[in-house]
Amino acid sequence: MSGLRFSVSSTEGTARRGVLVTPHGEVQTPAFMPVGTLGAVKGLGPEALEECGAQVMLANLYHLTLRPGIERIAELGGIHAWTGWRGPILTDSGGFQVFSLGDLRQIDEQGVRFRSVHDGSRLRFTPESVVASQAFLGVDVAMVLDECPPWPIGEAEAESAQQRTHRWAVRSLEERSRHDDWPGALFAIVQGSFYPELRARAASELAALPFDGFAIGGVSVGEEKSLGRAVVSQIAPGLPADRPRYLMGVGTPADIAFAVRHGVDLFDCVLPSRNARHGTLFTSGGTLRIKNARFATDPRPVDPECSCVCCRRVSRAFLHHLFRSGEITAKVLATAHNVRFFLDFVGQLREALASGCLAATVDDWIALYDDESPTSSSSESC
Amino acid sequence: MSGLRFSVSSTEGTARRGVLVTPHGEVQTPAFMPVGTLGAVKGLGPEALEECGAQVMLANLYHLTLRPGIERIAELGGIHAWTGWRGPILTDSGGFQVFSLGDLRQIDEQGVRFRSVHDGSRLRFTPESVVASQAFLGVDVAMVLDECPPWPIGEAEAESAQQRTHRWAVRSLEERSRHDDWPGALFAIVQGSFYPELRARAASELAALPFDGFAIGGVSVGEEKSLGRAVVSQIAPGLPADRPRYLMGVGTPADIAFAVRHGVDLFDCVLPSRNARHGTLFTSGGTLRIKNARFATDPRPVDPECSCVCCRRVSRAFLHHLFRSGEITAKVLATAHNVRFFLDFVGQLREALASGCLAATVDDWIALYDDESPTSSSSESC
Repeated sequence: MSGLRFSVSSTEGTARRGVLVTPHGEVQTPAFMPVGTLGAVKGLGPEALEECGAQVMLANLYHLTLRPGIERIAELGGIHAWTGWRGPILTDSGGFQVFSLGDLRQIDEQGVRFRSVHDGSRLRFTPESVVASQAFLGVDVAMVLDECPPWPIGEAEAESAQQRTHRWAVRSLEERSRHDDWPGALFAIVQGSFYPELRARAASELAALPFDGFAIGGVSVGEEKSLGRAVVSQIAPGLPADRPRYLMGVGTPADIAFAVRHGVDLFDCVLPSRNARHGTLFTSGGTLRIKNARFATDPRPVDPECSCVCCRRVSRAFLHHLFRSGEITAKVLATAHNVRFFLDFVGQLREALASGCLAATVDDWIALYDDESPTSSSSESC
Repeated sequence: MSGLRFSVSSTEGTARRGVLVTPHGEVQTPAFMPVGTLGAVKGLGPEALEECGAQVMLANLYHLTLRPGIERIAELGGIHAWTGWRGPILTDSGGFQVFSLGDLRQIDEQGVRFRSVHDGSRLRFTPESVVASQAFLGVDVAMVLDECPPWPIGEAEAESAQQRTHRWAVRSLEERSRHDDWPGALFAIVQGSFYPELRARAASELAALPFDGFAIGGVSVGEEKSLGRAVVSQIAPGLPADRPRYLMGVGTPADIAFAVRHGVDLFDCVLPSRNARHGTLFTSGGTLRIKNARFATDPRPVDPECSCVCCRRVSRAFLHHLFRSGEITAKVLATAHNVRFFLDFVGQLREALASGCLAATVDDWIALYDDESPTSSSSESC
């Protein structure tokens, strides 16, 4: 029996404000989940991530299977004891990563075989093994194994992947029932590429099953922005209203604002942390490439409206200097800023929802970030 | 007029417990100063450094001259506004770094000419320019320009360097008198290589001058440990009792404990932060190379007696995993631990001094760290 509960406290159109109760605490939704692929956000220890205001952390079963291995983590007390992160943890199953391996993997009805990119060892994921591993880790939210096709792809192939994803979802639920002692939740993943009929079919078939939540996968795989948004606006509002909806691996503040408007509750993306390490900072005035020469003498904080550990104490000029000097502290401060920025940003969306003024807030963010952003929103987590 | 005040509250033999009052706050001595060469400790923003318990940060005039330049920092409000570090800041003059440049520098009585390792531009340090720059930055404690010879070196050359260092010290004091609006302090540096008569002469000549404090330089330049310790035990106890004594660039916990016993008050060293980045951790039980396979399954914190952000939350096994996976978070957590460890360690020496049991404490640390440590204590800051 899942320890997850979800309730909606207010709505505006198709958007909703809610709370997700997990075995490791509450998550106010809409929520952004910082990505700690290997158990920690790159540059941030567990306390630093808390300080950013994170409510929930995402990790990745594929990466943890390779390093250090699921048994190892379980022996060390499970994923919470191991990472030191005390709040809820959602693990992606790693379907996206495995299917991205190309020649290194072979897929069949049973599951997928692949080789470790580190030592060449042979590994196998099945829908059952993936659920069992996540239960073994003690995660709060587990994701099913899905087949996440690239784009472009023909409709027949997309349909084949969607149907296999569905059959795997059914097997995942069966496996879940074998782990009664695990209080975590299991989310399904809606696939179907960018074919509206396939997506509609995937969503309605999965919605009939007793999943704890529903994700939209296969978005942000290299398609044009309009295609991804079409999937979100088509699918999200129709997913079961009483369960959380999660858009995987998306995206810019504009993408997230758009999806919140269409009823999505949960997000993850490597964009804030990855871009931070390259010196691209998100602000309430748009992105800022801190290595640019014009910031060398700029005494202002990265974002005057931000109260992160970076903006509280140092200037754009100092951060520019640290980046130009190749200092590791540059990446650490920039990551803390970007992660805090995303968390504050979804906090603003929650406040707007609570006070009934989401529409204008969403429009503002879309205008701000769609106008400028050539930044890829491709993600480690499909 | 310097804003520095120093008072000794208790002594045990030649060792002393005291407090240094600077324009940016108090420093309880003996104190360890973490090294933020370019304005921040590698991996730690200003708040993270505070969280480690640092009372004072060290930066380096040579490195700041190259990047981003002294004028730039002054324009941005001085070194405190620029780094975001609100406590006292001591800058090393960079003499050690300049003299290490070999063919890239030329020394004469006036000062030293050198080329930037970044862009080849020609630069010049004189005793006067170095004091003026540090005053311009607004540091709390400035160091004179000294001639820091390598080891081994002949006695005639060592004497020449010591005498030039003395003449430069006199000029530095004169320059200091031209910056009445700067409340910072100026410390002399005792040189003389490993020739006891030269060291004695340097110390007695400098002690007659109105410096705010006295440093022992030219130790930890590649000599055998016994040579460096002989200089410390010979020179430190005889330096003016009413002013702080600073041993530059030293060292292991054993080295520091030894020097505290002989009356040294201030220390800096890159050892904790540099070793951390390579996975060598200091603990109350000796050093620990966290990348070793035996730590892969070790559920204990790095040091069960430590309460740093790393030890509070994660195991040796998790830190091992982060290092093995090449995660930047590994370096960040390890640095926070090592810096905290050094700060806690000198805190223990202060407590032992206050309660009159320093001797046994020093013996314990020397036994623990001299027995094992093949680690170089060479430093960025002479």
